Amino acid sequence: MKVIAISGYHNSGKTTLIEKVVKELRKRGLRVGYIKHDPKGHGITDREGSDTDRLRGLADKRCLISPAETTIWESTPADLRKFIEERFGDCDVVLMEGFKNIEGIPKVAVGDVTVKDLVLRVRGDEDFAIVVELIERMEENL
Amino acid sequence: MKVIAISGYHNSGKTTLIEKVVKELRKRGLRVGYIKHDPKGHGITDREGSDTDRLRGLADKRCLISPAETTIWESTPADLRKFIEERFGDCDVVLMEGFKNIEGIPKVAVGDVTVKDLVLRVRGDEDFAIVVELIERMEENL
Repeated sequence: MKVIAISGYHNSGKTTLIEKVVKELRKRGLRVGYIKHDPKGHGITDREGSDTDRLRGLADKRCLISPAETTIWESTPADLRKFIEERFGDCDVVLMEGFKNIEGIPKVAVGDVTVKDLVLRVRGDEDFAIVVELIERMEENL
Repeated sequence: MKVIAISGYHNSGKTTLIEKVVKELRKRGLRVGYIKHDPKGHGITDREGSDTDRLRGLADKRCLISPAETTIWESTPADLRKFIEERFGDCDVVLMEGFKNIEGIPKVAVGDVTVKDLVLRVRGDEDFAIVVELIERMEENL
């Protein structure tokens, strides 16, 4: 599996870049995972008052099984690499969004941002083809 | 692991019953999972236009890592028992809500509903202690 993070400041165009990269990787027949970092906890992933929301804080783990998709809520893992191996092991490529300060994961920086383990700096989504090329050429790292 | 479904018609009080049962099981030191069936796909588990929502239909699997909780979206499993084993294997008890027609999972019926593999019929959440007792006494079934 190849794991790479796309990091940059807020509104730098990370998600748009990732959308284009994912589309291209999928076209090439690869199975792609996406992991978004929400360090401030602003993400809302359930409808207030829904049954699964009512069990938040009560059950240790929750799940909603819908026809098109299944959603699982669980404790945030202490060991992110182990989590990726276990949960995304069936993916060829995992794109992480954010995670500027994580160590040991190669990074694509979008715009003028300081990141650890930098392998490529791009301007924005106009450079998506270069990112796809980088991913194609990189070795499996997890 | 003990797996049991709480089934009943809409508004029969399944979730309130489950809330009380989960609280009591947790008090007893058990690790509890909750799986809600959404056969009509009415569940909404992301905020429209959020980054993870933008990747819906593009990435094969998505995840949001927040400080308090991690949310994973993936394809709905073809084999539910295997899914429960793999994803809820760290739970002592798994309470399923709905799943009236699933075979091979013992059921608690709430109110006047026909279910397969019935083991207990209750009126509603006022009977939560009986459900807890049943779960305590049942054998591991997965």
